[in-house]
Amino acid sequence: MKLCFVTKNLGKFKEVQDLLKSYVEVVQTKVKVIEIRSGNLKEVARAKAKEAYRLVGKPLIVEDSGLFIHALNGFPGVVSSEVFKGIGNEGILKLMKGVKDRRAEFRSTIAYYDGKKLRVFLGSKHGVIANQKKGKFGFGFDPIFIPQGEERTFAQMKLKEKNAISHRAQAVKKFIRWLQGYKLRTSKIS
Amino acid sequence: MKLCFVTKNLGKFKEVQDLLKSYVEVVQTKVKVIEIRSGNLKEVARAKAKEAYRLVGKPLIVEDSGLFIHALNGFPGVVSSEVFKGIGNEGILKLMKGVKDRRAEFRSTIAYYDGKKLRVFLGSKHGVIANQKKGKFGFGFDPIFIPQGEERTFAQMKLKEKNAISHRAQAVKKFIRWLQGYKLRTSKIS
Repeated sequence: MKLCFVTKNLGKFKEVQDLLKSYVEVVQTKVKVIEIRSGNLKEVARAKAKEAYRLVGKPLIVEDSGLFIHALNGFPGVVSSEVFKGIGNEGILKLMKGVKDRRAEFRSTIAYYDGKKLRVFLGSKHGVIANQKKGKFGFGFDPIFIPQGEERTFAQMKLKEKNAISHRAQAVKKFIRWLQGYKLRTSKIS
Repeated sequence: MKLCFVTKNLGKFKEVQDLLKSYVEVVQTKVKVIEIRSGNLKEVARAKAKEAYRLVGKPLIVEDSGLFIHALNGFPGVVSSEVFKGIGNEGILKLMKGVKDRRAEFRSTIAYYDGKKLRVFLGSKHGVIANQKKGKFGFGFDPIFIPQGEERTFAQMKLKEKNAISHRAQAVKKFIRWLQGYKLRTSKIS
């Protein structure tokens, strides 16, 4: 079985591929998918998977993630990628200057769709917003997010270390468990 | 002719109604329209008008606007309403603290759709981001936007004053000009 991962983000692709490679061959697939706006990552991922399938026509996954900062009412949340493009990590650090409550949560949603079966898997990682950027690995808000139980940011961790604990890895692992059962039950995607 | 203005924002409705009332009866219509994410206000408005028509089934307009700040690479732009909900005017002022280039542009898009004809009208107003919030009128980022040629923010202007110069009023006026011609050419929406 080959599985298309519809994403333009190479960092995201590498993380997910590293987790999936023992189970399924993953191919990075770049198509322009029109996304919906919604207050809910799950809704966004479902709609994106359906729209991507219309374009690709093969079993696929999409991933959507967001950083939810407590002191900023969950901002940037579902518009994390747009906010990152606009103001980057520097912007978030500026907004958090002088803010004592630095709690934040990274959430990830993986949606699988093969034209018939649509499934969504969630992952979450709590942590805090660092006082300054640190690290060179990963992408996006990784340099300013320190996961719970760690002193380093995600960007100070190599791929294997991040994949042992991240929100995205958690969603992928749930997907793997489901996929193994699904492959046993059906030959449609073999 | 009755025209539905699909919006949940009463401030927006009042501004647009005040401009349109001599030409057409406008009815505020509240339905949950799923919006798309796009880098482009025009695309967002087109898709929103079509989706709204699927729910409402009557000639309608939708409006989408955004504040584009030069020094923040056009942020918050197309995600202005999400950003406003998250960090408000205070957040933008924090991001702009110590920033000398305070140029910004408010853009508005009106999309009209009656099941057959789809038309989009744009309006724009240049200005600067104020150093502090001022005024009690309007909504959204009005208290921090000083339009070109003015010393007051949009929120310091009464509806009639704002409607004489705003991005939204400009888009509505273009729509009115087109609508007058359209009504002459067709009886479909009379």
